[in-house]
Amino acid sequence: MSLVVQKFGGSSVADAESIKRVARRIVDTKKAGNDVVVVVSAMGDTTDDLLDLANQVAPIPPARELDMLLTAGERISMALLAMAIASYGHEARSFTGSQAGMITDEVHGNARIVDVTPRRVEEALAAGAIAIVAGFQGFNRRTGDITTLGRGGSDTTAVALAAAMNADVCEIYTDVDGVFTSDPRVVPAAHKIDHITYEEMLELAAAGAKVLYIRAVEFARRNQVRLHVRSSFNHKEGTIVSDLTPEASMEKPVITGVATDKSEAKITVVGVPDVPGKAADLFTRVAAEGVSIDMIVQNVSAAATGLTDISFTLPKDRGARVLAALDASKEDLGFQALQYDDQIAKLALVGAGMRTHPGVSARFFTALAEAGINIEMITTSEIRISVVTRVDTLDDAVRAVHTAFGLDADGEAVVYGGTGR
Amino acid sequence: MSLVVQKFGGSSVADAESIKRVARRIVDTKKAGNDVVVVVSAMGDTTDDLLDLANQVAPIPPARELDMLLTAGERISMALLAMAIASYGHEARSFTGSQAGMITDEVHGNARIVDVTPRRVEEALAAGAIAIVAGFQGFNRRTGDITTLGRGGSDTTAVALAAAMNADVCEIYTDVDGVFTSDPRVVPAAHKIDHITYEEMLELAAAGAKVLYIRAVEFARRNQVRLHVRSSFNHKEGTIVSDLTPEASMEKPVITGVATDKSEAKITVVGVPDVPGKAADLFTRVAAEGVSIDMIVQNVSAAATGLTDISFTLPKDRGARVLAALDASKEDLGFQALQYDDQIAKLALVGAGMRTHPGVSARFFTALAEAGINIEMITTSEIRISVVTRVDTLDDAVRAVHTAFGLDADGEAVVYGGTGR
Repeated sequence: MSLVVQKFGGSSVADAESIKRVARRIVDTKKAGNDVVVVVSAMGDTTDDLLDLANQVAPIPPARELDMLLTAGERISMALLAMAIASYGHEARSFTGSQAGMITDEVHGNARIVDVTPRRVEEALAAGAIAIVAGFQGFNRRTGDITTLGRGGSDTTAVALAAAMNADVCEIYTDVDGVFTSDPRVVPAAHKIDHITYEEMLELAAAGAKVLYIRAVEFARRNQVRLHVRSSFNHKEGTIVSDLTPEASMEKPVITGVATDKSEAKITVVGVPDVPGKAADLFTRVAAEGVSIDMIVQNVSAAATGLTDISFTLPKDRGARVLAALDASKEDLGFQALQYDDQIAKLALVGAGMRTHPGVSARFFTALAEAGINIEMITTSEIRISVVTRVDTLDDAVRAVHTAFGLDADGEAVVYGGTGR
Repeated sequence: MSLVVQKFGGSSVADAESIKRVARRIVDTKKAGNDVVVVVSAMGDTTDDLLDLANQVAPIPPARELDMLLTAGERISMALLAMAIASYGHEARSFTGSQAGMITDEVHGNARIVDVTPRRVEEALAAGAIAIVAGFQGFNRRTGDITTLGRGGSDTTAVALAAAMNADVCEIYTDVDGVFTSDPRVVPAAHKIDHITYEEMLELAAAGAKVLYIRAVEFARRNQVRLHVRSSFNHKEGTIVSDLTPEASMEKPVITGVATDKSEAKITVVGVPDVPGKAADLFTRVAAEGVSIDMIVQNVSAAATGLTDISFTLPKDRGARVLAALDASKEDLGFQALQYDDQIAKLALVGAGMRTHPGVSARFFTALAEAGINIEMITTSEIRISVVTRVDTLDDAVRAVHTAFGLDADGEAVVYGGTGR
């Protein structure tokens, strides 16, 4: 008998009909002879609705109470799902994060899992029941308080449970058929990837692919949890995320996919004195605003003035905040001016084969040049090349690169990996 | 420093504005130098909305899961209330039933409190915070499962906490000014009662007064918890429910109030063989449907036939169920026919003074007769007389009795007790 962990997101349980459909799917998996543990998110817009209410009663809701509020969302969806399963003649028992033993640290709103003790989940399976576990939530032992895991928390719950219970597979249900070589809405020739490594999936997720959250993929890699990203609307095989066997590696294509991200903006700090410690000072002030910086470019300083320009990208929704903080520090930092640009976009080429195949960069930049795309910033990792372009040229850029690396569905015969939407 | 327990029902926290208003009231009580424990129900129609969802996914939702679902309601309201209090500069910590130590038996949907261990609530008060506790919910130690206390559960939570923590008063906030001598919508001359005994309050609640639930009043009486029923919309003194001192007793009026109830129907079982055990058999079958019977009348049997008629009242919403069960047992019970009447109403005259003042019955039936009211059934307790009349004559009946016993606000000078809405 296999142990299957299935995770259903909010859009899969948005209303009573969807919940019944998901319940039938779960019952099918159980009937096929599996032990089934289900992790479920809050229904549709529930979390946003609760956040709206919070903002109506308090300008800055205390984090402890916000966690208490938001965890009501999964409580509703998991109980309804258990009821729907019961109506199909199978026993299901729902468990909160604390009942399922999701032990976390004390950081409300962004807690880390420190231990998983799923005794009650195991008891439910032993009794022949299907276990339904609330995603996104945990419990701190010292305070006795409820915590939440932050963005993508339900994915993390599912992977953590799968790891702790040594599940055969952790199925992540979504509204697309799997992980794609690029966003099919932009690149019509994009196709589903059958198999992708954790490492490639991490790079794609970091570069903007939204189908899986980085944290859940990291957790899966560390614990060797086999992920299966698939659609909740059909029974097609989706994308398997795992480590490749050496044999499989040899047949692996050079490039897995092309990810894009339009959610970032660029700040340029003009005329910074090019003396040791200035950049550190600058980024310390940005970090103090709780902002993660992605790409950084520093120009060669002009010999005559000893001044340089520093550009970096950051999430658009933090732009105003960081600009205000830097402006307040203008005298200390000694720069001349700030420039803000929210018409940029990022494009990332990802593939484990880059390590061993020379010429990838050349082919990449040639493709972009031939398509007339201007490149503003570049960063690389071992298995990724990222560039910043104008947002209005992004779609042309991604199509050009997708074709250049033979990723188009009607292109080369080998199936490549890539990014979902 | 006094310890005050305040309970706010769903209509007091129906939206963000109401929650902020209630938060200000709680903060005022804290600022006046009191320790404050707040018990809160789910917002407005939340419970009904959740029940609707449950019925959409499952015809007969499992009781365990229904409790899991419904307890999301108070989780939302209590977290929002704590946030609103924080926005006024005071710390508030919300606690679920299980966090607040409301230990119950295992009966989902109608659990009984078996122990209250409010350690975390006491810690919150010791730290200078206001404690917010979810009403209606508890926790079973053996199963580790969440339970709910059934109808009026939040009143019971408040009284149980007040008893366990030895509170100075348990304030029950509602949308009327207190307990009234009768329903002011029917009897314009009805007025608020300043002070009523537990015993009288129990009789009024049992007879249809909705301002307090029987179970909470019983709990308060057993543990000598002083209740203060008052409006959440103004700061007027409401109605105190407690045991009277002997001095106060002497000045207590004969009659406290007149309660009415239109929620019941009457079933008449026609032509039952008048032999020992038949009535027991009949009512055993009714009890098997989980129905509480209130009034029973058995006619003197006709000598010629040896048959009798038995009539009883029961909640209207159980009528169809009980009729079906009796009809299925027609042969066993040997009756001739069933009659169902949902056009009845009950009227109850309540007053501790009945024990020692003769002539109350005479005055009561005279008043009804003079108003032309036909009486169909009668039952009495030591301090109550109840009758069943036609529902369309009920309003005339209650006004006639209210006046006859000098309960009208501009009537006799003594202030009497009575029923709320």
